[in-house]
Amino acid sequence: MPSIDALISGVFKGEKSALGRAITIIESTTHENREKANHILEACLAHKKNSIRIGITGVPGVGKSTFIEAFGSMLTAKGKKVAVLAVDPSSTLSKGSILGDKTRMVELTKDPNAFIRPSPSNASLGGVTRQTRETIMLCEAAGFDTILVETVGVGQSEIAVQAMVDFFLVLKLPGAGDDLQGIKRGIIEMADALVINKADGATKKAAQIAETDFKRALHLYPPKENGWVTQVMSCSALNHEGIGAIWKMIQEYIKKSQDNRTFELKRKKQRENWLSEIIESELKRDFYANKSIREEFKKLSAMVAQNKISSFAAAKKLLQIHHKESS
Amino acid sequence: MPSIDALISGVFKGEKSALGRAITIIESTTHENREKANHILEACLAHKKNSIRIGITGVPGVGKSTFIEAFGSMLTAKGKKVAVLAVDPSSTLSKGSILGDKTRMVELTKDPNAFIRPSPSNASLGGVTRQTRETIMLCEAAGFDTILVETVGVGQSEIAVQAMVDFFLVLKLPGAGDDLQGIKRGIIEMADALVINKADGATKKAAQIAETDFKRALHLYPPKENGWVTQVMSCSALNHEGIGAIWKMIQEYIKKSQDNRTFELKRKKQRENWLSEIIESELKRDFYANKSIREEFKKLSAMVAQNKISSFAAAKKLLQIHHKESS
Repeated sequence: MPSIDALISGVFKGEKSALGRAITIIESTTHENREKANHILEACLAHKKNSIRIGITGVPGVGKSTFIEAFGSMLTAKGKKVAVLAVDPSSTLSKGSILGDKTRMVELTKDPNAFIRPSPSNASLGGVTRQTRETIMLCEAAGFDTILVETVGVGQSEIAVQAMVDFFLVLKLPGAGDDLQGIKRGIIEMADALVINKADGATKKAAQIAETDFKRALHLYPPKENGWVTQVMSCSALNHEGIGAIWKMIQEYIKKSQDNRTFELKRKKQRENWLSEIIESELKRDFYANKSIREEFKKLSAMVAQNKISSFAAAKKLLQIHHKESS
Repeated sequence: MPSIDALISGVFKGEKSALGRAITIIESTTHENREKANHILEACLAHKKNSIRIGITGVPGVGKSTFIEAFGSMLTAKGKKVAVLAVDPSSTLSKGSILGDKTRMVELTKDPNAFIRPSPSNASLGGVTRQTRETIMLCEAAGFDTILVETVGVGQSEIAVQAMVDFFLVLKLPGAGDDLQGIKRGIIEMADALVINKADGATKKAAQIAETDFKRALHLYPPKENGWVTQVMSCSALNHEGIGAIWKMIQEYIKKSQDNRTFELKRKKQRENWLSEIIESELKRDFYANKSIREEFKKLSAMVAQNKISSFAAAKKLLQIHHKESS
């Protein structure tokens, strides 16, 4: 095991093995490794480089791996250095993690300009989120200029990924629902682009219909705060068709948002929000870490549900225990 | 000043003066009054009665006061006892509180079966939210069976109100935007009904067009978890037209959700969520109540924004100060 300084210098040189080891330290929860992790992170922060962070989501079966394989390979062919990360808090349990099975991304896995890292095998979303955010910083310090963060199409992890990327792309299946019926609540608000995949073979026609339907439905939506209107496109990741157009669209987004300064503003807000989020989640963690609080919470919460005590009185009791125990 | 027990018994008898005084105690922040408030609340919780809680929102000018006047008067004519509350954290500053000016609700103000209480003049949304939730309990214990909670059409206070009511009604102006353009993000997800007001005089035609447009746009949305589909209606609060149909629709909602048990389930979840919310907001309040934390937070937050320190390192520093100071 090289010294931390040697490891950092390896990361700065873009050595994938050093990057991988540094991420392992970041993912560790031992006190000693957290100290090292903070040292690495501060060094990487000072060494920061320009990058674009793209979030990609979609339900299982939508072809995320195929899309990332096609999209990432196109980017490395253009001279980009691509890091592929994942936020999948379920991966420990399900073992069905998208990136766990690297055989699905044959090209990218052997591509010298691509770096693939599966979701940290950590049960809590908060932990996975923190580690992925930190991993982004490490990858950027290692010279990766395009970061793809993949997530499974389930609620909270999508919100977490959207809060760490510049551009959020939602992959859709053709005909997976009529019009907006197939669209989850809130996803349109989050998406910078909806891309219907599998515009090929037997589903080509359905993809075209879905594209038209979504375009019609989405034009009713107001533009986002930064002036961007959610784009609707279709592609065949399998046949590498439409992938170039998607990249062009993302570049246009980046250019526009850099020109009107919303790009840096969004990142600045994300960093500030992270600070508050970390503090709040740590305060909560501290609170519920106490065994007698947890036991009392369980009892009181059941009483609240049955309307035997008010939420206010129950909260007051729990906070009194907390103050007594922490002083 | 009567004793607390006399006050509670006055509330139970439905005496408006006792109810008003009890609410004033609830709204007070002195330690002594908080003790009394908890005593009153526990008594009211035990005395709880059946009620329907309806949230009403809409931008200034949409005619909320006129609507509540017409809607509330219709309800009292049907033998209902109606309490009108408000969540308007801006009322202290703007003095433009919807309910502050009771002259806008001439009929209801003198109606013996109506009770009107303006938003507590408390600057923070959290404080206003807690007080309004507690006031609902008091009004219900006093026999008010229909609680209308009004809020101004701005973000967080709408979310707060939606989390304390059974039914959430969004008032819209006719022609205040084409199709969904005039609709704020997330509002469709929250609304159980969209009601276009001012379907009268020069705006009658525009209201009809808006109703058709919203209906067309909304049918693309999937039903809510409880099976309810957001309804679109129009009315003229000024001419008392369409008000009865709205009440019929709300009754249908209540019946359906009571039949499939989602009514009590929603309330149960609201109570449980309140418990967690109160704990989390108190933990945050405790944290930021510390002056040296506040000063350090300001400094570190600016550094985070400028990317001079990571969000993680900054949070760690603040939490260290917190732990040192609270032990």
